Formats: sequence, C-alpha cells, structure tokens
Amino acid sequence: MDQTSRTLTAVGLGPGDPELITLKGLRAIEAADLIFVPRSRDGGLSYAERIVSGYLRPAQTVIRLPLPMVRNADELVPAWESAADAIVSAYEQRGATKGVYLLLGDPLLFGTFIYLAERIPVRDAYMQIDVIPGVTSFAATAAKANFTLATTDDRIAILPASYETDLPALKALMQQFDTVVFLKAGTVLAQLLAAVDELGLTATSIYGEKVGMPEETLETDVSVLAGQNRPYLSLLIVRKPETNA
Amino acid sequence: MDQTSRTLTAVGLGPGDPELITLKGLRAIEAADLIFVPRSRDGGLSYAERIVSGYLRPAQTVIRLPLPMVRNADELVPAWESAADAIVSAYEQRGATKGVYLLLGDPLLFGTFIYLAERIPVRDAYMQIDVIPGVTSFAATAAKANFTLATTDDRIAILPASYETDLPALKALMQQFDTVVFLKAGTVLAQLLAAVDELGLTATSIYGEKVGMPEETLETDVSVLAGQNRPYLSLLIVRKPETNA
Repeated sequence: MDQTSRTLTAVGLGPGDPELITLKGLRAIEAADLIFVPRSRDGGLSYAERIVSGYLRPAQTVIRLPLPMVRNADELVPAWESAADAIVSAYEQRGATKGVYLLLGDPLLFGTFIYLAERIPVRDAYMQIDVIPGVTSFAATAAKANFTLATTDDRIAILPASYETDLPALKALMQQFDTVVFLKAGTVLAQLLAAVDELGLTATSIYGEKVGMPEETLETDVSVLAGQNRPYLSLLIVRKPETNA
Repeated sequence: MDQTSRTLTAVGLGPGDPELITLKGLRAIEAADLIFVPRSRDGGLSYAERIVSGYLRPAQTVIRLPLPMVRNADELVPAWESAADAIVSAYEQRGATKGVYLLLGDPLLFGTFIYLAERIPVRDAYMQIDVIPGVTSFAATAAKANFTLATTDDRIAILPASYETDLPALKALMQQFDTVVFLKAGTVLAQLLAAVDELGLTATSIYGEKVGMPEETLETDVSVLAGQNRPYLSLLIVRKPETNA
C-alpha cells in the first residue's frame, strides 16, 4: 500500500442510546466511506449497527466482521486476524481513505478495538489509527438512576464479574472500595447479589441491563433480582452506604 | 412553587473538547432557558462555560455560581446551600422551566452536581432532576494516546490521588490492579512517579493534563516528569506491563 492518507477511527458509541454518541464520533461516522461493525450472532443488526442506523447514508459501505464473543481472548485470535485482513482489504478494494470501527461504550475500556488495532500496522504501515472515547455503560446507568458513583476522596473499582470465581476476594473488594462496578454481571448475578446481601449493601446497589436501549432494564431495588441470573450485557453497581452522598 | 413542569438537567460535558459533548447533552443545552455554570476563580470564563460558549444563544441566561474548590467537602456546605438557593430563585424570577447545570467529565463520577442535587428537592419539591452522562477525562486521555485501559478480565481502580497520603497502600493497589487511574494527580505527581518507578511501571504509564483543552499536556514518557509537581486538573494512568494488550 502507498502512503496515501488512510485513517481508521474507533468510535465509542456509548451504551445504547443513539443520543449518547459524541459530536466528534458522529462527525467521524458521517465522514467515513467504510463502516466496520461486528456481525450479529443471530443474523440481525448488531447493537453497534442498530445504534447508528439513523446516522448512515446509502453511499456508505457497512462491513460486518465476524467476531464471536468467547470468554478466552486467545480463542479469538483467528477472528481478529481475519477481521484485520478484511479491514485492510476493504480500503484497497474500494479505494477508500476513511473508515470507522464502531463499538459500544468506550473503545479502550474492555473494548474489542484493542485486539484489532494492534493487528493493523503489520498489514498497512501507513494506516492512521485514531480513537474517539465514548460514554461508559456504568456512567449511563448511574445517570438514569441519579446514583452517585464517587465523591471527593472515594475509590472506585471496575471489573468484569463473569471472570471472577473468588467470591471472598470480591467481598473484600466491596469492603475496600467505596464503589465497585461489576460489568458483565448478569451471568453470575445470583451469587453476586448473595454476597452483596451478606455485606448489607443491597439497599445501596443498582442493576442495569442494556441501559439506553429499547429493551433496557434498570433496577434500583436489587432485592427483587435475588436468586436470578440475567443476560451478559449488564452491570451491578455496589456502593457503601456510609459514603453515599 | 406550583407543580408546573420544571427540570434541572446536569450535563456532563466531557473533559474539555467541545466535540466530546454528547448529542443528548447538546440538545439539553440548546433547549434550556437557564445555563448554570461554576464561577471561575479568576473572573474569566470557567472551563465549563468555555467549552459550551460556541453552543449558547444570546436569549439564554448564564448564571455563574460561586463554588470555590476546596479539599474538604464540608467546607463547601454554605456554597452549595447558596448555589441551590440561586438555582431555584432563577426559575422563579424568570418564569423559566428548563435549566442545565454544566460540569466537566461525568456528573456522578467525582462531579459537583452530587452535592447540589440533594439540596434542590427541599427548596422545590416539583423540580425534576435529570442527569446526562459524559465522557470521562481518563477515557479521553487513553483515547488520545491509544493506551489500553482494560481488556477481558482486567481490574481497574480509580481514585483521586490528591487525597491519598499512604504511599505503601497506593503501591499495593498498583500491584493488585491491572490499571490504576490517579485523578487530580498533579499536586502529588513527584511522589506518585517515584512509586511508579520503584514498581517498574514507568514505561507503561501515561500522564494527561487538561486533555482536550487548548492548553492540553499529554505525556506518554512519564520519566520526563520525574520530580515535578503539576496542576490539579490532571491524571496519571498506570498499567501493569504483562497485561498491556
């Protein structure tokens, strides 16, 4: 490939509400020739594509990349390699100079773009890679519930709950930190809520699922969810009551 | 006050770049009669007012609230009380129904709105309070540097460094977490960087100051900052090298 200016911009779309895209992200999408999104598992629109559907023009080419969601990132290596191939090829074949890679939330906070970005330079040394940050799912969930995440000298911890198996360690974290955000909480929600209850933190916890999407669930009384597991795209925010403003 | 519909919407403006406002935040600002911002200490425009200056219309009333920045939140109680008075009075005096309270970053993550929001209902029980989330300073800093915040099963901790005096505890956190975000890091930067260096994490740390503003400083080689203290509106992100994607 020659040195003609090509850019690939990762755009954090926020958690689901199309209005929570940044102006900068929207302008990057509008200016792009190529729109890269994950391919939905069920053949329908992916969340990312659904969020931006109202912003796209017919002249733009949407390229759906097969990126299966698996627990172990290593299993995804072949998928990332082929997605990086597909991205670089798309610029070549179409003579395109501007592409955006769309993803939920923020690109660099548990985002899929991290794995892709490192595979582009070996394929196209002249591709410029930019990142536009996005609103996180936990900020959007807190906003909907007017739930304080942190004030003044508070400490906050964020971790994906579905990878955590050491419940005593999680309980220690909830005692050590003023606020703990458990991402991907749904699949282990029953045991998380049992731990939260033992610590007396049920009344100062909230649960959100697909917040900002039409099928949103927001629960400020998490006791009603006791014993349930829920979908993957969800989070539980636990806060110590003595520090809740 | 009667039950006429009045709303006060906190809008997270993001870290400084006016393009990082969300569409939802911009629409709330455009629809507002009253624009509440902090009063700058030096008499100039506050950061919040400067960010939105290009989006305001002459018909909108900007009300600058004196909210001195102090370390101890208790010292601010009189300022919050008088700011809440000023907000409620402004709706009454002007017969206004829509106001926005503007602040940097996200309103509920170390934001000033938390203290204000709790003081509004006792003054106007019918004021509806809404929150629009914003891009955080650490997401924007990471985006500018294309610096991974977290992948897969990583844990991340966020805390305001200027309140931390227990250096051994901070070092333990940097060993316990894959990524630690130190907000308000500038005033204690010299001792933080010394600790980071002792842990061998200098090469996998970045420093950002007023990121997204015209006077932005972004340093991906933090060793050049050794021994320096810097302004308050700054952050240091420290990541364990073995987990850096």
